[in-house]
Amino acid sequence: MTKKIILDLDTGIDDALALAYALGSPELELIGVTGTYGNVLVETGTRNVLALLELFGRPDVPVYAGIPHASTKDSFEVLPVSEFIHGKNGVGEAELPEPQGQIQETGAVDFLIDSVKEHGDDLVIIPTGPSTTIAAAIEKDPSFAENAHIIMMGGALTVPGNVSPWAEANVNQDPDATDAVFRNAKDVTMIGLDVTLQTLLTYEETRTWHDLGTTGGDFLGVATDYYIKSYETNSPHLGGCGLHDPLAVAVAADPSLVTTLDINLKVDTGGETRGRTIGDETRLNDPVKTAHVAVGVDVERFLGEFMERLTSLAENTDLRQ
Amino acid sequence: MTKKIILDLDTGIDDALALAYALGSPELELIGVTGTYGNVLVETGTRNVLALLELFGRPDVPVYAGIPHASTKDSFEVLPVSEFIHGKNGVGEAELPEPQGQIQETGAVDFLIDSVKEHGDDLVIIPTGPSTTIAAAIEKDPSFAENAHIIMMGGALTVPGNVSPWAEANVNQDPDATDAVFRNAKDVTMIGLDVTLQTLLTYEETRTWHDLGTTGGDFLGVATDYYIKSYETNSPHLGGCGLHDPLAVAVAADPSLVTTLDINLKVDTGGETRGRTIGDETRLNDPVKTAHVAVGVDVERFLGEFMERLTSLAENTDLRQ
Repeated sequence: MTKKIILDLDTGIDDALALAYALGSPELELIGVTGTYGNVLVETGTRNVLALLELFGRPDVPVYAGIPHASTKDSFEVLPVSEFIHGKNGVGEAELPEPQGQIQETGAVDFLIDSVKEHGDDLVIIPTGPSTTIAAAIEKDPSFAENAHIIMMGGALTVPGNVSPWAEANVNQDPDATDAVFRNAKDVTMIGLDVTLQTLLTYEETRTWHDLGTTGGDFLGVATDYYIKSYETNSPHLGGCGLHDPLAVAVAADPSLVTTLDINLKVDTGGETRGRTIGDETRLNDPVKTAHVAVGVDVERFLGEFMERLTSLAENTDLRQ
Repeated sequence: MTKKIILDLDTGIDDALALAYALGSPELELIGVTGTYGNVLVETGTRNVLALLELFGRPDVPVYAGIPHASTKDSFEVLPVSEFIHGKNGVGEAELPEPQGQIQETGAVDFLIDSVKEHGDDLVIIPTGPSTTIAAAIEKDPSFAENAHIIMMGGALTVPGNVSPWAEANVNQDPDATDAVFRNAKDVTMIGLDVTLQTLLTYEETRTWHDLGTTGGDFLGVATDYYIKSYETNSPHLGGCGLHDPLAVAVAADPSLVTTLDINLKVDTGGETRGRTIGDETRLNDPVKTAHVAVGVDVERFLGEFMERLTSLAENTDLRQ
């Protein structure tokens, strides 16, 4: 039986790779995509998702717009570092034709709440951006927190952050929202920098996509090369780009790819370390653990699955015009 | 076969409990105690160790003085919070007669280096205070870092610190020293707040010691009650006192008491989070992991062993005068 998933994306290069991973996974049935801000504006991200769904032959998947800024702010601008990593168009200046489709009239929050009500334990929600929309769903309907299964990309528990020594980019955009998710949601798997900086992609792999001679292969190759290039500047010690968002999708398809630590989490919302994900000391001895932090990953197996699924998906797009 | 151990203590109430745990463990042979500053001055700590060894009938164990202050400072004063937790005399104002014995003329650094040379893999070093003396041994003799097996109490990886939101007390005294240990030592097991705040003792347990009617039981009861009382003020959410230092000794006797995460660690030595223990991002993908952080503990089994060993030791001291 396939598992139903909703992706909550700020698309973003690795969000695009995560979307492709979902479409290329026979275990997963993508019932919708919600769009959040972060790497890009909500408008840019949802536009990219619509275009990618058409590129990969899945214009039937509905796309919903989420909340456009952090819960504690009233606007959002793309950070220079985000534009450096993902490009002005969010997908590394790779060409992506204007989509034919439109976003849904229903908002992302209501779609998320209704989907959990309808599908219950058959559904996994995979947020790969700031937690704002997910936290809004929790606030609007407490049964969402109770029943949703969430596998999120974000945070850093055992390693430093990537926007400061203590904060990871997604959580940093809206620490209060992620804190609300950790304190209220009953089942959150955290795929953070602890593992995603172990799963690295290089130009050697993207060569495969360039060589396909299809529009899908071109897109994946050009976008991912842009992403790898930003890592050469920002994190030269890694020797590749981190496959952050795709790993969260991969874990939804196959939880055995990671080993997890059961723990109750919080986010520091005040003080010097605002944005840090850390154990909640007040629930340290609570036998019920609501979060499961990935602390180990089968790198080789994940990279194999990743290349196989994305390459196979991209092979079946149109031949290069 | 018994395992040889050296304790590096800043005695300190839970250091005293760690010493008692070592003396009460048939698996462990205590070949010496080195004294560091931290909870108390080196002079106070080594005095307490000598007196405790006599109280528990082991005046044969040699005691060595370590370095009296942090590697980046030239003096040390006991912090008010340490005095609040451990009392002016370091052992919760419990009565402890002046010792007959003397500390050794050899310094702690040389004793540590020589012991690793002599005993190699048969020896485990258990530091329960600041890392200053251990780091000095590493600096003086690189073969020490290569060959020493260290089980340290200190740090906090997945939970907040106890002297700041990011720093644990031992590491906070000399972050540079612990950083040197993490970066150079080839085998360090970290028993941090992640697990030691899960292993709590209450007045219910100390009652057993008071009821023994022996000088050893009196000492353990009075000192530990003082310690529990400080936790009622500083960490009321815990409902008991953390058995920090004894857990490190217990893990030396029985490593299966904890589950560990293999990782390469560092300490933040600059910036806002000075004193934080965290994964070293530059060695994240190094397949060799030099540190093993306890992230889970069999609380019930440890508490059972703890009470059995300490009670049995205290039973065999003199009857109350």
